[in-house]
Amino acid sequence: MDLKRKAGEKVAEYVEDGMIVGLGTGSTAYWATMKLGELVANGMKIKGVPTSKSTEELARKLGIPILEMSEVTQIDIAIDGADEATADFSLIKGGGGALLREKMIASIAKQFIVVIDPSKFVKRLGQFPLPVEIVKFGWELTSSQVSSLGCKPVLRQEDQVPFITDNENYIVDCYFDSIMDPTSMRTALNSIPGVVENGLFVDMADVIIIGRENGPAEVLSD
Amino acid sequence: MDLKRKAGEKVAEYVEDGMIVGLGTGSTAYWATMKLGELVANGMKIKGVPTSKSTEELARKLGIPILEMSEVTQIDIAIDGADEATADFSLIKGGGGALLREKMIASIAKQFIVVIDPSKFVKRLGQFPLPVEIVKFGWELTSSQVSSLGCKPVLRQEDQVPFITDNENYIVDCYFDSIMDPTSMRTALNSIPGVVENGLFVDMADVIIIGRENGPAEVLSD
Repeated sequence: MDLKRKAGEKVAEYVEDGMIVGLGTGSTAYWATMKLGELVANGMKIKGVPTSKSTEELARKLGIPILEMSEVTQIDIAIDGADEATADFSLIKGGGGALLREKMIASIAKQFIVVIDPSKFVKRLGQFPLPVEIVKFGWELTSSQVSSLGCKPVLRQEDQVPFITDNENYIVDCYFDSIMDPTSMRTALNSIPGVVENGLFVDMADVIIIGRENGPAEVLSD
Repeated sequence: MDLKRKAGEKVAEYVEDGMIVGLGTGSTAYWATMKLGELVANGMKIKGVPTSKSTEELARKLGIPILEMSEVTQIDIAIDGADEATADFSLIKGGGGALLREKMIASIAKQFIVVIDPSKFVKRLGQFPLPVEIVKFGWELTSSQVSSLGCKPVLRQEDQVPFITDNENYIVDCYFDSIMDPTSMRTALNSIPGVVENGLFVDMADVIIIGRENGPAEVLSD
């Protein structure tokens, strides 16, 4: 079985009748949502809070009842992928550009479960460029202040024009090589005026599920 | 002489030929810009970086050459007002709604000079409701997370509709009564997903000028 699918489907074991579930975005979270659709088809009563338009569409197609962000103040389980994850439960997310909504949902989840394939499980964060969402006004200045933290920020482009987030902001992808202290880096980034949010998820993940080649998916619990 | 005017005009003593100057917004900063216009009329060569549209218009009218944010990475002196200031140089700003641009400019100033009338000089911050800029999406959730820090956030309205910042975000005015530790509060606020920026300016002001009733303006230097 595909390793992303193996990881994604494993989360079904955590979801119980009556729960509000954060539905992640990306190729591994996709399999989690698919599996939840199967459970709903078999009679389980859950409600989903999607992290993106595409996940919302998938969930609707699968018959998973949807809640808007404005309707929730707490989520029982949030499920999502990651661009990188470490054994101390730090993550880089935001490769897909929806880091803010993903972080909002993870921040109100009683349990945040990350599903990844083994290639995303790393010794230290930072090989993957860290996405940082910044406001358009004065973005050159903000980007220059971000670079002073020891990285090379590159304005994300799509079809030769700047990529625009759901919140009408830009993203700079920050090339660090390695991020020694994700907690301090997260605080330093958020302290820069013009930075809306960054893709470092520290002290948020409770469970990491890794699809493994031989045998069942591996489960790490914080 | 009006106390705001007394404080505002005092900053002229800090501005030298060739400087790039951040031009603040509000009734006290107004007098600083007016005074700078006078200096420019008398032959001083400075360039201004305005913190708002209204200040930009005023500066143009006065003949002060304007630089865009995209053209600067450093500012010699930023001048601005404050809604509250303390003897340890902590500020609340953002009553006018332009806190992000004001913080950007203050953050790259070699010297940040705050001009106030005595009513803004307080023992402890927090009587003035702290403005916090938040993204529209999921704002109810963000506001609820802000309230967990010990305040009552109220969505700012203008003509019965939500006030929109220059960056297309909302502002919640947060009623704290008193903010015991502005440094921790600033970090805590910026760590909430959905918070773009907050009106706490800590470790930024270098000089506070207070217009006093009798005698000259009082100057506090950090």
